[in-house]
Amino acid sequence: MARIAVVAGDGIGPEVVAQARKVIDAVLPGVEATEYDLGAARYHRTGEVLPDSVLAELAGHDAILLGAVGDPTVPPGVLERGLLLKLRFAFDQYVNLRPSRLWPGVSGPLATVKPGEVDLVVVREGTEGLYAGAGGSLHRDTPAEVATEESLNTRHGVERVIRDAFVRARRRERRKVTLVHKTNVLTHAGSLWARAFAAVAAEHPDVTTEYQHVDAAAMFLVTQPQRYDVVVTDNLFGDILTDIAAAVTGGIGLAASGSINPTGTYPSMFEPVHGSAPDIAGKGVADPVAAVLSAALLLDQLGHADAAARVTAAVGAELAGRTPGTPLRTAEVGDRLAGYAVA
Amino acid sequence: MARIAVVAGDGIGPEVVAQARKVIDAVLPGVEATEYDLGAARYHRTGEVLPDSVLAELAGHDAILLGAVGDPTVPPGVLERGLLLKLRFAFDQYVNLRPSRLWPGVSGPLATVKPGEVDLVVVREGTEGLYAGAGGSLHRDTPAEVATEESLNTRHGVERVIRDAFVRARRRERRKVTLVHKTNVLTHAGSLWARAFAAVAAEHPDVTTEYQHVDAAAMFLVTQPQRYDVVVTDNLFGDILTDIAAAVTGGIGLAASGSINPTGTYPSMFEPVHGSAPDIAGKGVADPVAAVLSAALLLDQLGHADAAARVTAAVGAELAGRTPGTPLRTAEVGDRLAGYAVA
Ligand SMILES: CC(C)[C@H](C(=O)O)[C@@H](O)C(=O)O
Ligand SMILES: CC(C)[C@H](C(=O)O)[C@@H](O)C(=O)O
Repeated sequence: MARIAVVAGDGIGPEVVAQARKVIDAVLPGVEATEYDLGAARYHRTGEVLPDSVLAELAGHDAILLGAVGDPTVPPGVLERGLLLKLRFAFDQYVNLRPSRLWPGVSGPLATVKPGEVDLVVVREGTEGLYAGAGGSLHRDTPAEVATEESLNTRHGVERVIRDAFVRARRRERRKVTLVHKTNVLTHAGSLWARAFAAVAAEHPDVTTEYQHVDAAAMFLVTQPQRYDVVVTDNLFGDILTDIAAAVTGGIGLAASGSINPTGTYPSMFEPVHGSAPDIAGKGVADPVAAVLSAALLLDQLGHADAAARVTAAVGAELAGRTPGTPLRTAEVGDRLAGYAVA
Repeated sequence: MARIAVVAGDGIGPEVVAQARKVIDAVLPGVEATEYDLGAARYHRTGEVLPDSVLAELAGHDAILLGAVGDPTVPPGVLERGLLLKLRFAFDQYVNLRPSRLWPGVSGPLATVKPGEVDLVVVREGTEGLYAGAGGSLHRDTPAEVATEESLNTRHGVERVIRDAFVRARRRERRKVTLVHKTNVLTHAGSLWARAFAAVAAEHPDVTTEYQHVDAAAMFLVTQPQRYDVVVTDNLFGDILTDIAAAVTGGIGLAASGSINPTGTYPSMFEPVHGSAPDIAGKGVADPVAAVLSAALLLDQLGHADAAARVTAAVGAELAGRTPGTPLRTAEVGDRLAGYAVA
């Protein structure tokens, strides 16, 4: 039976993770879960972000479920670089998977799009690009200061994530992959991405392909999000585009994410895109839907496609049944989702 | 009297530029304009993109008005790097200015925003960052290929564009500047931007400031574009954010842009954000509003604030008077705008 590590984290993290576990237990009884105390609270208490011993223990699990980490008093970068990105890189989680659907029952910000019309997934590269941490500075705090950030792209890293996008597209109805980059300005990395894309596309004649510059894609995600099926892009572009996709489908409060190592050599990690939301923490009013959708991605990754589909359908039922303006209770939503999922 | 260089360019470029000139002539008679033949057509005919002699001639003008360059048969990067970016860098156009307003009469894609509520300007850095062209690759077309792109940021370049943003904010009602970067991941460049921002902010206690990560800003531009006044950001982030801002305010068809050298050492360049639109070229149906708004930015930059304000007001009158669905004729719109501007 699957063994998962649970990092509930800070703020609303523990509340929403509790619901995700409730739903997992309902559809797949017997999953073994071990809790790990990581995040802002531990950092404040001990100064530790991710001890090597914990990293080694996490590596022994089949997957990681994370709630949210951080609070406004942790200096920027500490938990991002020290925990989240550290895990993505250490566990070679090269597929950062972010589905966006405009669910029936959810009112998005766009006047031009009807619920049900948007169903896309961004396959964001997770281990390269500007996230490599290859930068530096000289003459700090003088008028001569210069600072650099380098985007590192390997054929190895680019091709494997593109390949993953095509595999996912073939499991979907429209079978379409859009490559997003900025080949007209970032000519070196852009050329590598474009050539790797063309090579993988040639192996998949049954998949429709297109290319867009990142600025155009950002625009079309607002004006015509319906046009996208699978989008594959680099680490930083993916960071930006997935937040736009979340925004047009009801906000990051509903957005799920998986940092996936498709080879299974290391565990993949699943987490809602929203943060720890300290303002509403402890009140039992956080929406657990994004955490539960992340649990569905986890189940799918562990080979339980059927259980994953039931959880996703449960979320659909929950959202379709909501009356706008009615306040929600975190635990009640979790109970309902678990109920729908086994019905 | 001002001497401007006109690069009408390809596709609808000449059609919309003709209207911009009509409006300039109406509000500021006597401007001397010299036409330069640059763009896809010239490239196809002669193989030339921007001969040094032309660059030198352009340098002798007070400003450049550009329509649109490009067509689908020019290889990506040729005109972008060889013409547009070449001019931005050669003429040290470090302020890339992109205002976005949701004009009364224009229906944007957002259900949540009313015309008149959005009025922001992005001050995008124009001469540094990932646009520096500092990249390369090794082992091309082998499995070992690696490609890099380097973002170069200098205190000199960052501070001057931030300073420009604050100066602009002080001329506006809300006096607010939002810095957008990704300091939690791009820690070196992010730190330089953040420290330069703090230093300039300290000199302007009457300006309200805030900081947002680029992913959050991309999201808020969709969910709450009303919150922004002046946004200052790096070259690539600005490229993406300005297209989102254009999308939520009715599309790039209405978006104006200025690549400005505020010192006046070299000419600034003004152009609509839209492309050459070959599909509708020559039909006299292109909307010249973005070109005319770009002309207003040009007039403002040359010190004719009053003429600029009249042109901007004329656009407001034109857009407010449009009946959705009624086809427009490029030249008639130009005539009306010229009329409104001198009324
Ligand atoms: C927290 C931050 C490091 C992270 C990222 O930039 O990837 C976040 O924005 C995300 O999208 O998961
Ligand atoms: C054409 C391209 C080089 C340019 C850019 O990336 O700056 C364009 O997208 C813009 O925004 O002016």
